Amino acid sequence: MRTVDIIHKKRDGGELTKEELDFLIEGYTRGDIPDYQLSAWAMAVFFNGMTARETAELTMAMVRSGEQVDLSSIPGVKVDKHSTGGVGDTTTLILAPLVAAAGIPVAKMSGRGLGHTGGTIDKLEAIPGFEVERTKEQFLNQVKEIGLAVVGQSGNLTPADKKLYALRDVTATVESIPLIASSIMSKKIASGADAIVLDVKTGRGAFMKSLEDSVRLAKAMVEIGTEIGRETVAVITNMDEPLGPSIGNALEVREAIETLKGQGPAELTELCRELAKHMVLLGGKAQDETEAKQLVAQLLKSGEALEKLKQLIKAQGGDARVADEPDRLPEAAYRVPVPSPADGCIAAIDAEALGVTAMLLGAGRATKEDPIDLAVGIKLFKRVGDAVKAGEPLAELYMNRNEPADTARMCERTAAAFTITEAPAPRSKLIYAVVTRNGVRYL
Amino acid sequence: MRTVDIIHKKRDGGELTKEELDFLIEGYTRGDIPDYQLSAWAMAVFFNGMTARETAELTMAMVRSGEQVDLSSIPGVKVDKHSTGGVGDTTTLILAPLVAAAGIPVAKMSGRGLGHTGGTIDKLEAIPGFEVERTKEQFLNQVKEIGLAVVGQSGNLTPADKKLYALRDVTATVESIPLIASSIMSKKIASGADAIVLDVKTGRGAFMKSLEDSVRLAKAMVEIGTEIGRETVAVITNMDEPLGPSIGNALEVREAIETLKGQGPAELTELCRELAKHMVLLGGKAQDETEAKQLVAQLLKSGEALEKLKQLIKAQGGDARVADEPDRLPEAAYRVPVPSPADGCIAAIDAEALGVTAMLLGAGRATKEDPIDLAVGIKLFKRVGDAVKAGEPLAELYMNRNEPADTARMCERTAAAFTITEAPAPRSKLIYAVVTRNGVRYL
Repeated sequence: MRTVDIIHKKRDGGELTKEELDFLIEGYTRGDIPDYQLSAWAMAVFFNGMTARETAELTMAMVRSGEQVDLSSIPGVKVDKHSTGGVGDTTTLILAPLVAAAGIPVAKMSGRGLGHTGGTIDKLEAIPGFEVERTKEQFLNQVKEIGLAVVGQSGNLTPADKKLYALRDVTATVESIPLIASSIMSKKIASGADAIVLDVKTGRGAFMKSLEDSVRLAKAMVEIGTEIGRETVAVITNMDEPLGPSIGNALEVREAIETLKGQGPAELTELCRELAKHMVLLGGKAQDETEAKQLVAQLLKSGEALEKLKQLIKAQGGDARVADEPDRLPEAAYRVPVPSPADGCIAAIDAEALGVTAMLLGAGRATKEDPIDLAVGIKLFKRVGDAVKAGEPLAELYMNRNEPADTARMCERTAAAFTITEAPAPRSKLIYAVVTRNGVRYL
Repeated sequence: MRTVDIIHKKRDGGELTKEELDFLIEGYTRGDIPDYQLSAWAMAVFFNGMTARETAELTMAMVRSGEQVDLSSIPGVKVDKHSTGGVGDTTTLILAPLVAAAGIPVAKMSGRGLGHTGGTIDKLEAIPGFEVERTKEQFLNQVKEIGLAVVGQSGNLTPADKKLYALRDVTATVESIPLIASSIMSKKIASGADAIVLDVKTGRGAFMKSLEDSVRLAKAMVEIGTEIGRETVAVITNMDEPLGPSIGNALEVREAIETLKGQGPAELTELCRELAKHMVLLGGKAQDETEAKQLVAQLLKSGEALEKLKQLIKAQGGDARVADEPDRLPEAAYRVPVPSPADGCIAAIDAEALGVTAMLLGAGRATKEDPIDLAVGIKLFKRVGDAVKAGEPLAELYMNRNEPADTARMCERTAAAFTITEAPAPRSKLIYAVVTRNGVRYL
């Protein structure tokens, strides 16, 4: 088998066999096949696409390129959740204890964040004492005992995906649906998921800007799941504005606690209920959507979901009192209101720009080595569709720096992310569609 | 400027600017831009093509990547000729003295061959004493004195093309018309050509298998010439069978001498007259095609063309007596007839397969380091359309080895290149079309 023949076949619209995809990914992982052949192949895939079978086989080749988390000793259906990125997305902190309370084992290995804010692991470290490092045995035992563990990723999962993604990033081959889908799915499968719920973001602040592309990506991932026997459901949700009002690590932990108490922001609560419903269904804890919905509502109302968060914190050495006394979370030294420059209506909020501002405040990392400040961030007071008066605060910055020019610049960046119009603007829809193996259901 | 943005632009169907193409080719030549970005770009070009302007600017960027032969001290229009490859193609050995006899300065730097037989330089070395190494000054002086010099290439011409071609070869990006066209034209322009006549081969034994693709390639090269002010004419010719009956270095020199004497094979003679006609026109030595045709015929008939070959041989230290006594050329020790296995008609001759057999006999190099045997080769006795009887020789092998199993294998390979049918087969057409800046003229 020669790599050039495989590229040629894909270039001319052929469908690659399992053997060809394995040869490509194994050779690339070992370093036998050079970057310049993989990038030419990736560009050919950009133009000619891949069939569902090919995409699934590429996914599994990437899964086999590294270690795989073995969750088979934990009884039950392990349902994982993935979001295709976004700003102010606190769903994992809410969903993990929520579905664990429903009896679905949650064995989550999570990475640190790079970008706007920290990853789930960074956010949990905002809880005093919380430890994210656990041996594999401790991790599995904790899931067996309390049904829930969230630890830092160890081991070398999907090295082929890491290498290929870095290559695609510099060769203009990122925007290919089968390559994006196989990248996401390979990580979930290597992490041991039996079933997967995907939150596919769409809109200005998301990777996929149009609903049509988001549905295509969702379908591709659901098809991979179907091909390899890991049932997958995708929910397509709005990222034309940040999901929740909090952007920043401790701020998001606080918001998660409020949501688990039933006092969270409406949109974040609605999305978590929707995602949890699908997880509960895939986990076999409900017969139908109505029953799943009722179960989720009851777990929130009864406090069982919040109780599960406390168990998680305790099991990992943290101070569980934060659940009742969120002021124990790190707090920023300064709060700076960002006034509206005009009367009008909020027509758009640039989630991406706010994410970058949060990173500049210290909430996220620009490079892997950067430290992050868990206390800082941005709290939004307005959503799209809200009316606003000049001078009224649009948002509040949580800062640990106090240098007037810097503060002014941060306020300016934040205000600039809001588009204020004279005419009233419609509220944006939160959930657009649900994609399952049976097709797309638009909501 | 970022390479990834340039790839992205081409991927999305954009037209690259001169600055972007210069950035790409300069950076690649210097080694600042890695192979994996160029291969992704080349694949994007494969799918989205390039405009005539882009192709011309890529060509000139490759010309500027290395040294350029400066022929400006030689008066007159320097017309160069290029063939897109083929088997048994002796045209350069004939055309160089023929057009030089017409008063067109021929200053040719030629490479050694890799493949079926040697290059023009190797073939000339079959003439006893012929020296192909000359200093730049000697080379230019010889052209000024006798109007003709053919020497080995020195200097580093179009290094970007060499590097890019090697990359395309292993990334399935060879078959792109603008990339092929710019590769060929950059070499001709760097060699100092003011005007260019191209012999674009089409058919089974050629790189371009269909007439349509050959016309597209010819058009792309003529457009480059037009864009950069080097008038270019392309003749599309048949490569469904070898052009002349001789394949092998000394054999081809002998055939060239016969053709210059007016005693050459019909098809080779016809093609040389056609190509010479266009060269004479581009060189300003005739007013129209009729005049050019007459001039070429007269130069062959009067012996002036043959005389020019003798001058060339003498000027480069060779034994000019070979022109009158071709038996002074190296001769193979053994001649082995290849009998026809059946009665019938020759329906096809696989030029590619015969080229490989000639190489196996020692006439060509498989790798750059291989020595070549100037005396060996294949002489064909039949053309497509000819009738043949079982046992009648199809060809004769010129060999310097005498090992029965080897000889039998070579005979078998040669016979297998002939397709013999019961039904009569039509003769194949030699010249299909002429492409100039004014368009395509089918013949």
